[in-house]
Amino acid sequence: MLSFECDYNKGAHGKILKRLAETNEEPLSGYGSDKYCTMAKEKIRASCQNPEAEVHFLTGGTQTNQIVIDAMLTKYQGVIAAETGHVSQHEAGAIEFTGHKVITLPHTEGKLAAETVRRCLEEFYGDENHEHMVFPGMVYISHPTEYGTLYSLRELEELSALCREYGIPFYMDGARLGYGLASRETDVALPDIARIMDVFYIGGTKVGALCGEAVVFTHHNTPEHFLTTVKQHGALLAKGRLLGVQFDTLFTDNLYMEISRNAIETADVLKKLFKEKGYRFLLDSPANQIFIVLENDRLERLKKQVNVSFWERADEGHTVVRFATSWATTMEEIEALEELL
Amino acid sequence: MLSFECDYNKGAHGKILKRLAETNEEPLSGYGSDKYCTMAKEKIRASCQNPEAEVHFLTGGTQTNQIVIDAMLTKYQGVIAAETGHVSQHEAGAIEFTGHKVITLPHTEGKLAAETVRRCLEEFYGDENHEHMVFPGMVYISHPTEYGTLYSLRELEELSALCREYGIPFYMDGARLGYGLASRETDVALPDIARIMDVFYIGGTKVGALCGEAVVFTHHNTPEHFLTTVKQHGALLAKGRLLGVQFDTLFTDNLYMEISRNAIETADVLKKLFKEKGYRFLLDSPANQIFIVLENDRLERLKKQVNVSFWERADEGHTVVRFATSWATTMEEIEALEELL
Amino acid sequence: MLSFECDYNKGAHGKILKRLAETNEEPLSGYGSDKYCTMAKEKIRASCQNPEAEVHFLTGGTQTNQIVIDAMLTKYQGVIAAETGHVSQHEAGAIEFTGHKVITLPHTEGKLAAETVRRCLEEFYGDENHEHMVFPGMVYISHPTEYGTLYSLRELEELSALCREYGIPFYMDGARLGYGLASRETDVALPDIARIMDVFYIGGTKVGALCGEAVVFTHHNTPEHFLTTVKQHGALLAKGRLLGVQFDTLFTDNLYMEISRNAIETADVLKKLFKEKGYRFLLDSPANQIFIVLENDRLERLKKQVNVSFWERADEGHTVVRFATSWATTMEEIEALEELL
Amino acid sequence: MLSFECDYNKGAHGKILKRLAETNEEPLSGYGSDKYCTMAKEKIRASCQNPEAEVHFLTGGTQTNQIVIDAMLTKYQGVIAAETGHVSQHEAGAIEFTGHKVITLPHTEGKLAAETVRRCLEEFYGDENHEHMVFPGMVYISHPTEYGTLYSLRELEELSALCREYGIPFYMDGARLGYGLASRETDVALPDIARIMDVFYIGGTKVGALCGEAVVFTHHNTPEHFLTTVKQHGALLAKGRLLGVQFDTLFTDNLYMEISRNAIETADVLKKLFKEKGYRFLLDSPANQIFIVLENDRLERLKKQVNVSFWERADEGHTVVRFATSWATTMEEIEALEELL
Repeated sequence: MLSFECDYNKGAHGKILKRLAETNEEPLSGYGSDKYCTMAKEKIRASCQNPEAEVHFLTGGTQTNQIVIDAMLTKYQGVIAAETGHVSQHEAGAIEFTGHKVITLPHTEGKLAAETVRRCLEEFYGDENHEHMVFPGMVYISHPTEYGTLYSLRELEELSALCREYGIPFYMDGARLGYGLASRETDVALPDIARIMDVFYIGGTKVGALCGEAVVFTHHNTPEHFLTTVKQHGALLAKGRLLGVQFDTLFTDNLYMEISRNAIETADVLKKLFKEKGYRFLLDSPANQIFIVLENDRLERLKKQVNVSFWERADEGHTVVRFATSWATTMEEIEALEELL
Repeated sequence: MLSFECDYNKGAHGKILKRLAETNEEPLSGYGSDKYCTMAKEKIRASCQNPEAEVHFLTGGTQTNQIVIDAMLTKYQGVIAAETGHVSQHEAGAIEFTGHKVITLPHTEGKLAAETVRRCLEEFYGDENHEHMVFPGMVYISHPTEYGTLYSLRELEELSALCREYGIPFYMDGARLGYGLASRETDVALPDIARIMDVFYIGGTKVGALCGEAVVFTHHNTPEHFLTTVKQHGALLAKGRLLGVQFDTLFTDNLYMEISRNAIETADVLKKLFKEKGYRFLLDSPANQIFIVLENDRLERLKKQVNVSFWERADEGHTVVRFATSWATTMEEIEALEELL
Repeated sequence: MLSFECDYNKGAHGKILKRLAETNEEPLSGYGSDKYCTMAKEKIRASCQNPEAEVHFLTGGTQTNQIVIDAMLTKYQGVIAAETGHVSQHEAGAIEFTGHKVITLPHTEGKLAAETVRRCLEEFYGDENHEHMVFPGMVYISHPTEYGTLYSLRELEELSALCREYGIPFYMDGARLGYGLASRETDVALPDIARIMDVFYIGGTKVGALCGEAVVFTHHNTPEHFLTTVKQHGALLAKGRLLGVQFDTLFTDNLYMEISRNAIETADVLKKLFKEKGYRFLLDSPANQIFIVLENDRLERLKKQVNVSFWERADEGHTVVRFATSWATTMEEIEALEELL
Repeated sequence: MLSFECDYNKGAHGKILKRLAETNEEPLSGYGSDKYCTMAKEKIRASCQNPEAEVHFLTGGTQTNQIVIDAMLTKYQGVIAAETGHVSQHEAGAIEFTGHKVITLPHTEGKLAAETVRRCLEEFYGDENHEHMVFPGMVYISHPTEYGTLYSLRELEELSALCREYGIPFYMDGARLGYGLASRETDVALPDIARIMDVFYIGGTKVGALCGEAVVFTHHNTPEHFLTTVKQHGALLAKGRLLGVQFDTLFTDNLYMEISRNAIETADVLKKLFKEKGYRFLLDSPANQIFIVLENDRLERLKKQVNVSFWERADEGHTVVRFATSWATTMEEIEALEELL
């Protein structure tokens, strides 16, 4: 059985397991105060080319979204997101659980346009009764988006300028950030993100780690007593070393970018393959997720030999499925898939 | 520098790291649906001698307390706990964060007496105005307690009978459960707990794992859509394998109990040492935590060479400190400490 | 200055003030346990022709929506509502404040179609990953809607059948219920609502009372310990008599319906007037709210002499405004407005 | 049947009903923006001798406590209160409902001593692990307390100095404030409170109004967008006039103080009566609540003719009951009670 259903179906990069074993016997202090966390933060700051960046490690993506959003919003604010945003759809109400509304806006291939956000903000402040409504207090985007698409540098800067104009933070969910950065079609590098965004996270779970996301506050804007907030949310890992060692490894010798490129290279081969064989693409996706429109009976046959991800019904006879590559996808797997297609 | 400040300062048991490496390349489904989770659950059920037990894996202790309590309480209920309970004091308000009051009662060496709980319940239901108060909806204990003490089988049964009488679940925080079970002074075995409690968790973080706690609902009483609740709390790990492989290893060939005994054996040597040297004990602790009353200046000297945990001020000139052993404490470390004392 | 901006700009019906004065000196028990509450409940049950109906009094509309929805949803559920629903837009996130998502669906003139709700429910349960999403746990409608429109008996029955099919309660926000019932264009009477809905409320604030809404659970389905839930939400009025006396008066000698008809009659005259003078209607509204599309400069002039409610921008040069009549609108006010138009 | 069970068993002062009737026909804007609210605020500011004071009207006491505390605390903070505080015991968890812990401290006759609070704060900040605990973010007192006792000016100033030292607001629940101010045994006047406290409320429900509490922020410290917070909590009254007219009346010609004195005068006669007849007092209460220790059989007989409030069991054979007078207690009622005693 081949596995192309997601980018988190294998364990961790070998170097991570090796470092976990090497450091295993050392007694280390808890809750993220160990030296590996410190080293990892330093390396992330360097990769970001932002010496002011403050880095915190959390375990998973929904947890990170919940905590960052809850920590940065005041109690009467909500977060603006695309209708297709992970926080809008697939986090079981984790944002509302903390008392905050997700204010959803229309999207284009998973992306929020600055113009759309501006209209929302203008309408809100233009409404005489806006004090009876949820204040928009943050803009959330994912990059790559849930549709595998990427913001251009210019689009990010437009959204950022708009957020500054309205005095609200701009937050990027980077669950798959590595794959976005490694795309051949992007003009956005990590230092750009660390300059443009108010806060973002560098996904580990989907890019080589067993678990872990690195939240980066870019201009000394970590919310006060953030550790207490993390604890209050049940998210403070006692053995912070598990996150520190992993991110220290990922940010040593450029490993994070190197393994991200593997996902892009294997995806590129796969895209070429689909193109040659005349498959229909839902959209042009520049990173590691490929959305293909399949006839239903063909999908049924395929599913017997390949795990793919159901995305949405296209029409009566067709279904959109997602093929995802990852840091761990091998050319052998691609070739095996080629045989089947 | 010697480390006796806690039981989570080293990595994971070697067998766990080995199994993580061996299974690393296998593509596995996410969110706890992989075969290692399934195998681990089966082994835990067997160790519990309770075929009805339902097992769920979470990442950390505060997270587990928050989710179990929130999932089992109705919205207008609170949880009864000792004033010294972890949920009462050291979880940064994680229970109140979910809208529930911790109803604190007096304790004896960290333990709740059935009589104390009965009085609380009787007073509540005897009060004409109790509909204006928080309904007690659960009893929380920790075993071992925060003071390292243990409930006897009889004490657990009394509390359990009381809970059944009032129709509220009885929940055990087993962050250090292994050390309680391995104590020479207990008459409580895992199957007893799996018979008496409505829900409890088997701590992994403090007993050999990198992270992870196994929640056990003992009589088909998992709250409906518990996975959604876990997701809503930001606690659903994408790579559930990380928890599955660890608990599968811990519950293979009795490893969990074996390594728990190491903590007890090293603690026993240490206690003997303290006794011989005339140290003053705060209380008699049967498991892996030893509370010693030290002169402040002696503590200052000691702290230069040993990490211990500040517990509380005893009086003007004395401080209570905690020495903890663990699954990973070596006799060499004990001997090195002996030198210093 | 004429006032047509809303239906809550005057005090209470004279009979209510009279009854408050007559009963003022009687010592009465608190929190809704007084005899006037009891009498009012009995009269409401009779008007509903539903002897099983359980009635509870609350103070305001948003409060009522928050409490009813929070009390009836389990923690991982959300409430389905039209995008234009009061709970979706104009309650400052009161629903999310209690941890629940408002799942918004497209509307037609403020109304939810059964077909739209069915598609939402089918898509949810058809999605393999629905356990990662908020469970739809209730359907909320307002009647009259925020656009002054009304559901037909058939539409309510279709929605109700759908809710029963999916086992979720069907809830009606009746902030302006009297005006809906008194409309000449409705085929829905109060007993229909008390038969079809699982829970609804009869608005007092907008229909003759100083404050107060009567929540009706129609089939012994009041959530357990509802009084405690009301208290927990900060909504339990000490002097419940204030609500009891008001609703007792409103439901004596059919006063509620009688004063509701005044709003309809004055609205009808007003609509005729607008029609004769060639004003443009946004939609045909059968109850007490009239939405007119005005040239912006005309609106500016009008606003100097009449308070109306800004509704939304129509286009560059036009604005939609709302004229509302109420139980207290006099024909003199209508005539005065006629002069101005 | 005589009624001495509480101070909210009658309607409103006659002047309030009269003003409600006189203003009833005027069309007024909603949500507290009407002229009566404005006038009432101005008069309260004058009575407070604090021109900077910002006044907001809410409906009930628990609601006010919930909103003020939630609006002033950051998300990771809790509120310090006496174990016997209304927020600690009798609000059904309304504070925890908003995510905040009530940090309870021992009391003396319902009062918090500055020394007790200082110890709590010192221990918190002295604890190395305090980032794992709930931050104390406010001190709550009630005045008069739940035991009818009063803080002296000096005690308030000590607590206030302590709060300033730690940078946390000092909040007074004044549900019965009038009775405290009117006591013959107090040295605290309203301007003292408006100078010393950061925020407090002037209770209307228990002092002459049908409902309503006036929150006073004393130094331009109203939390930002407080109206939105009130709306979010479901507490924004559409017809704010109901609160405005009532408080305007209460603060015209010193009515609030005048009617408060009635409660004190009738309580004084009653206390004298109890003393003469040899009744046992639980404590010396300077305001309108009298706590008497009664033999159980005597209580049973009494309860057939007088409503009193059960307070607590004293011992096997005795019960503490509360007799409360109010703004509405008549000398005839006192005399009737005298007959019975």
